[in-house]
Amino acid sequence: MSLTNQHGGDLDYIHRVYNIPRDEIIDFSGNVNPIGISPSVKKAITENIDLLSTYPDVNYTSLRSAISSYTGAKAENIIVGNGSTELISLFIKSVCPKKSVIISPAYSEYEREIKLCGGKPLLFPLREEEDFRLNIPDLFNAMDKDTNLLVICNPNNPTGSFLVKSELLRIAEFCRGNNIRILIDETYAEFSDDDMEVSAIPLADDFKNIFIIRGTSKFFASPGLRLGYAITSDTDITDTINKKKDPWSVNILASVGGEEMFKDTAYINETEQLISSERKKIISELSTWKNIKLYDTQSNFILLKILNKNITAAEIFDKLIKHKIVIRDASDFPYLDYEFLRFCILSKEHNQLLLTKLKEIIE
Amino acid sequence: MSLTNQHGGDLDYIHRVYNIPRDEIIDFSGNVNPIGISPSVKKAITENIDLLSTYPDVNYTSLRSAISSYTGAKAENIIVGNGSTELISLFIKSVCPKKSVIISPAYSEYEREIKLCGGKPLLFPLREEEDFRLNIPDLFNAMDKDTNLLVICNPNNPTGSFLVKSELLRIAEFCRGNNIRILIDETYAEFSDDDMEVSAIPLADDFKNIFIIRGTSKFFASPGLRLGYAITSDTDITDTINKKKDPWSVNILASVGGEEMFKDTAYINETEQLISSERKKIISELSTWKNIKLYDTQSNFILLKILNKNITAAEIFDKLIKHKIVIRDASDFPYLDYEFLRFCILSKEHNQLLLTKLKEIIE
Repeated sequence: MSLTNQHGGDLDYIHRVYNIPRDEIIDFSGNVNPIGISPSVKKAITENIDLLSTYPDVNYTSLRSAISSYTGAKAENIIVGNGSTELISLFIKSVCPKKSVIISPAYSEYEREIKLCGGKPLLFPLREEEDFRLNIPDLFNAMDKDTNLLVICNPNNPTGSFLVKSELLRIAEFCRGNNIRILIDETYAEFSDDDMEVSAIPLADDFKNIFIIRGTSKFFASPGLRLGYAITSDTDITDTINKKKDPWSVNILASVGGEEMFKDTAYINETEQLISSERKKIISELSTWKNIKLYDTQSNFILLKILNKNITAAEIFDKLIKHKIVIRDASDFPYLDYEFLRFCILSKEHNQLLLTKLKEIIE
Repeated sequence: MSLTNQHGGDLDYIHRVYNIPRDEIIDFSGNVNPIGISPSVKKAITENIDLLSTYPDVNYTSLRSAISSYTGAKAENIIVGNGSTELISLFIKSVCPKKSVIISPAYSEYEREIKLCGGKPLLFPLREEEDFRLNIPDLFNAMDKDTNLLVICNPNNPTGSFLVKSELLRIAEFCRGNNIRILIDETYAEFSDDDMEVSAIPLADDFKNIFIIRGTSKFFASPGLRLGYAITSDTDITDTINKKKDPWSVNILASVGGEEMFKDTAYINETEQLISSERKKIISELSTWKNIKLYDTQSNFILLKILNKNITAAEIFDKLIKHKIVIRDASDFPYLDYEFLRFCILSKEHNQLLLTKLKEIIE
């Protein structure tokens, strides 16, 4: 059986059921940067541990300033939160969208939060026959006069498909003209070859209807830190969120660690280079296989459709786990089925191991 | 001028305006345990720093188990959160109380959260002429058939007044009979000489209408950690909160640090002994003064009324800050005025210094 949860395989469960020591599991399901957390972050935390006896700065001024330098967004347009999860929740609670359109398949948290607010989420499908690329004219037709929120993950999880700046601009303009806010989750944007081409941050100043969310769990390999941020030039939304939010939801060690993280250009460059070159290599290798279909991606994970009718994603999961390899059986995402699996990019050696084992199973 | 905020003096502000280095400020305004964060917590965090690369356990099983051993509450009745602030917010959002009664003066967060939910908070005064002790019959009369929430901080901040088990039992029974939930904030309960006499935890199994909240910021000197917990035997509320809450709002370092914290009996005993003996000494000294009125307390802070009409709390604040001493001018709390000041218990030496300076000013 393949057990999955929101952020990939449940490693505690796998450890218990398959009796694999946690640190021996090769986790291709979590989409986390294989380099691990930056030593500079660990150093900052260890050196500042006595700060635990003080409250964090309610305004998180230094942290927001570091994010500003890193992203190019204005510090006053940045809100920090306890992971992107808190920011998704705060934004949706502040907007209370009556009718929302979510580009799907996607992370189920958007839908959950919209429903918690009494809103009606409509899933707009990325179609397999269009290689999961967004059909923008169809999307515009699907949004009626009651729609007040559009949710996009860019690059999208789990499909890996992505929008570029000209497409984002077109969507932003259409939505502005129709009073539709856009929540853009950029959890995976930094893994792309040119993140300023995939990111909506350069549009944030001109489009008040855009609300961009980023986490640090994946790119900075720090899901335990609980640090995310949002960018918007809509001061009404910023004010509403600041009124609603818990004043110190970012732990002080996450705050000092975060400051170092965004300044660590060596780590950032190393990550970009590793993911980019491995992505190219894996895609090039997979392109030669006959029994799979591959989708273009700028993220740190790859979605595959198995064309070999003799095996399902769940069965592949089961075969790989014998080698301590955990992938994501993607069959439980809306619009996907038992033929789809997702895996993320890890170290050169691990990626090669996965490809070798996968080839034995599929080809 | 005396600037205050929700958790005491704003030390960054004081540092900037009065040009006192932050680490030279003697902070009697923050109500934080002067022993500082336990070395065992710092050790656990430093040793487990690589956990940052993994998500916290969504169920926080080990952490809840440590809290269970510490408090005597059942692990299944414990919810952990990002400081008591998140738990106050989650509880109030889950209950959505139409009409609430808040024992006042109190922390303004309860009122803010009730208003955010569209509820109507009524402040029930602790009366100066009753030494800020709760008048229970009057409270019962003040709660009408529409009241569905009572908020109590025990011991109460800023008055220091407290309810004992027989009083809590009486209130719990009345409220249960009238379908009123009780939020009991026990942030300061562990500082009392017999916390099981002041705490409602022993009542939690029998009274589903009780929701107890505790933070670690004050007793465990860890406001930067953002760790709190709630105790209730009402599984409906637990389920609702778990549905609403962000899955990983407690950072993984706060989780591993917290586990050690609750097991550190040496630290807990040292804190209890220091606060208890210093409280007795300070109260005994203050009882001999003529120009103040003192109120009985089981908390780690003391509220004073200045009877000397020639000086206000704000002026005392100003005089003390010249000695790098920061107290809490309590005049901005509801039902208090310019005659009231609050200070917490610090080390023997600092307490002695404060009493000496205060005596020069007041007596």
